[in-house]
Amino acid sequence: MQSFQPPRRVLMGPGPSDVSPRVLAALSRPTIGHLDPVFQGLMEDIKSGLQRLFNAPDHACVPLPAPGTAGMEAAIMNLLEPGDRAVIAVNGAFGGRMADMADRAGATVVTVDHEWGTPVDAARVEAALAEAPTKVLAFVHAETSTGVRSDAASLCAVARRHGALSIVDCVTSLGGIAVDVAGWDADLVYSGTQKCLSAPPGLSPIALSKRAQAAISARKTKVRNWLCDFNLLMSYWGGDGGRTYHHTAPINALYGLHEALVVLFEEGQQAAIVRHARLHEALVAGLEGAGLKMLVAPKDRLPQLNTVLVPDGVDEAAVRTHVLANWDLELGAGLGPLKGKVWRIGLMGASATPWHVRLCLTALCEALAAQGFKADVKAALAASDAKLAA
Amino acid sequence: MQSFQPPRRVLMGPGPSDVSPRVLAALSRPTIGHLDPVFQGLMEDIKSGLQRLFNAPDHACVPLPAPGTAGMEAAIMNLLEPGDRAVIAVNGAFGGRMADMADRAGATVVTVDHEWGTPVDAARVEAALAEAPTKVLAFVHAETSTGVRSDAASLCAVARRHGALSIVDCVTSLGGIAVDVAGWDADLVYSGTQKCLSAPPGLSPIALSKRAQAAISARKTKVRNWLCDFNLLMSYWGGDGGRTYHHTAPINALYGLHEALVVLFEEGQQAAIVRHARLHEALVAGLEGAGLKMLVAPKDRLPQLNTVLVPDGVDEAAVRTHVLANWDLELGAGLGPLKGKVWRIGLMGASATPWHVRLCLTALCEALAAQGFKADVKAALAASDAKLAA
Repeated sequence: MQSFQPPRRVLMGPGPSDVSPRVLAALSRPTIGHLDPVFQGLMEDIKSGLQRLFNAPDHACVPLPAPGTAGMEAAIMNLLEPGDRAVIAVNGAFGGRMADMADRAGATVVTVDHEWGTPVDAARVEAALAEAPTKVLAFVHAETSTGVRSDAASLCAVARRHGALSIVDCVTSLGGIAVDVAGWDADLVYSGTQKCLSAPPGLSPIALSKRAQAAISARKTKVRNWLCDFNLLMSYWGGDGGRTYHHTAPINALYGLHEALVVLFEEGQQAAIVRHARLHEALVAGLEGAGLKMLVAPKDRLPQLNTVLVPDGVDEAAVRTHVLANWDLELGAGLGPLKGKVWRIGLMGASATPWHVRLCLTALCEALAAQGFKADVKAALAASDAKLAA
Repeated sequence: MQSFQPPRRVLMGPGPSDVSPRVLAALSRPTIGHLDPVFQGLMEDIKSGLQRLFNAPDHACVPLPAPGTAGMEAAIMNLLEPGDRAVIAVNGAFGGRMADMADRAGATVVTVDHEWGTPVDAARVEAALAEAPTKVLAFVHAETSTGVRSDAASLCAVARRHGALSIVDCVTSLGGIAVDVAGWDADLVYSGTQKCLSAPPGLSPIALSKRAQAAISARKTKVRNWLCDFNLLMSYWGGDGGRTYHHTAPINALYGLHEALVVLFEEGQQAAIVRHARLHEALVAGLEGAGLKMLVAPKDRLPQLNTVLVPDGVDEAAVRTHVLANWDLELGAGLGPLKGKVWRIGLMGASATPWHVRLCLTALCEALAAQGFKADVKAALAASDAKLAA
């Protein structure tokens, strides 16, 4: 067993994205104790940073000590008790996962199923909510499996109209498109660090409304998940009342998240959102210049996760293998019904730069040519560059 | 919000311990994708490294993507279903936590309570198992809250005699005293990274016997915890049958664990155990030379976690504040019934060196003197040095 030295990679899949040297450097700062007064200061700084990031000044915001999936599980497990009714919009892999978890929480689960590649339909969701008293409406803001954006503001409003709490999956949206928790009046929002925040995977920032906190306090049964029990978690992260030992925080990972927040705030959240949008347009122009087509309708596209249809006769996996072998470039494969039918190209955080777009177009055209598909790299780059210059 | 620069600290509390520069450097290597073929090689390397570390060649060994508490929760949630009987030995804070989790799993929980500071009594545990058919016996090998070692071999044998599966908490023992999963014939063993492995907190290595795997396969209900559902986790970490996407592994944290394993195997596991034992003897000699007394009887002491009684008239917290302020030295406080009555001094992994012992004795004597307790630092160091030289 010898020390591991990772190869150079350019990360343009569905996450993780490229992690900036500043965040990598933060990870390797000396570990201090999780009960150290200085570390408590860091925790407070992260809490207020997350409130700013989510635009959730009145929500309780903390990072869970596990990947984004833990945020999903914590949301479901804390807000649902056996017998509660949950309406879950499913328009990709992650909505389906929420439904599985809600079932494990003992809830009565009603899914509103959509074709993959389409956004959640607020009218159909509202119809499901109107059928019976419902505790929770859960949906995915930015479906990583399809590259589709749903209208979180409308869906949260639907939940409010029917007295349901809203759970919003913002794993892929946060930092790449607007996440406006206060504006949406959302109840429980969670995310991950390895998408548009460009920190390594392993933490799940969450925001919890006062309504959600009251609902958790009013539970009749204990939360089934001890590690993600918000009553315990919030005591550990709590400010005024001191801190109660719960778990041992992943200290160095939190250094990384903190630095990622500093980097993002230096750029400006709005500037980062504009950057994602511009590079998305440049990428799409280039892909279309190369003769490729997108899965998702223009109005529903996520800038940070681009699903590109695999042309007839092209071996999807061979293309990814080619770009990895020849360009150290990681692209994502399709999941579920989209397996073999799309590539997923991420433009997330530090991976959303003109350099990444040009490299990706160059590598992809080369790989397609090797498969006999005529993709004109000059036309692709010209179209992309023109869009960026506009 | 500005970049965070941690202060220098010497970590001699109950964990985290000092992280070696090699492990810190590994954390900051560039992030690669969790589905990258090279990363899959790293995962295989970690799996076989953990089998070696646990001495569990026939167990399935993986690191969970969350702190040691996740290992505890995964163990309880995967092996227990509603209505199952669980016997849980409680001789400190972590046995009590297991009982809470087993209750959340819907199990019928029988605790066998012990005075804090004493080891688990195998005869009393056996009596509880004899009362009714029992699915699980759970206990803590090395109680971090008290510094007590229990006899894991005997307790696992008791479980086997009564047809129960054994869950063994080795969070603090692994790497510091012998953990012999095959020799014990234990079923589900979990640990953490921030104790004697001297990696940052955030991962929980576990080992799962074939019996435990069969019991999980035979469950009538789904595991309540999705993230820690071993059926899903093992598919993600699985070798031959390929990998099924589950969560996104905490890549950089796994770089750190891998390097910590390399460091430990370079030293040799037996050599590391001997080192912990020798430095423990040197520390105890020094503490006794300074006029202090230990909580735990000599035969039950953990070398890596030393509980020292606070002398009458000494302000426990003031001493910790003094050594932190003047020596950047972190010592641990007591928990639960031991709060205010003991200090917990860790000698874990990279924090188990003669330098740490001498610094600790020096700082502690100074702080005690400031409280009016006459602690002779020269006598303490002489006693400690003599023990090390012996």
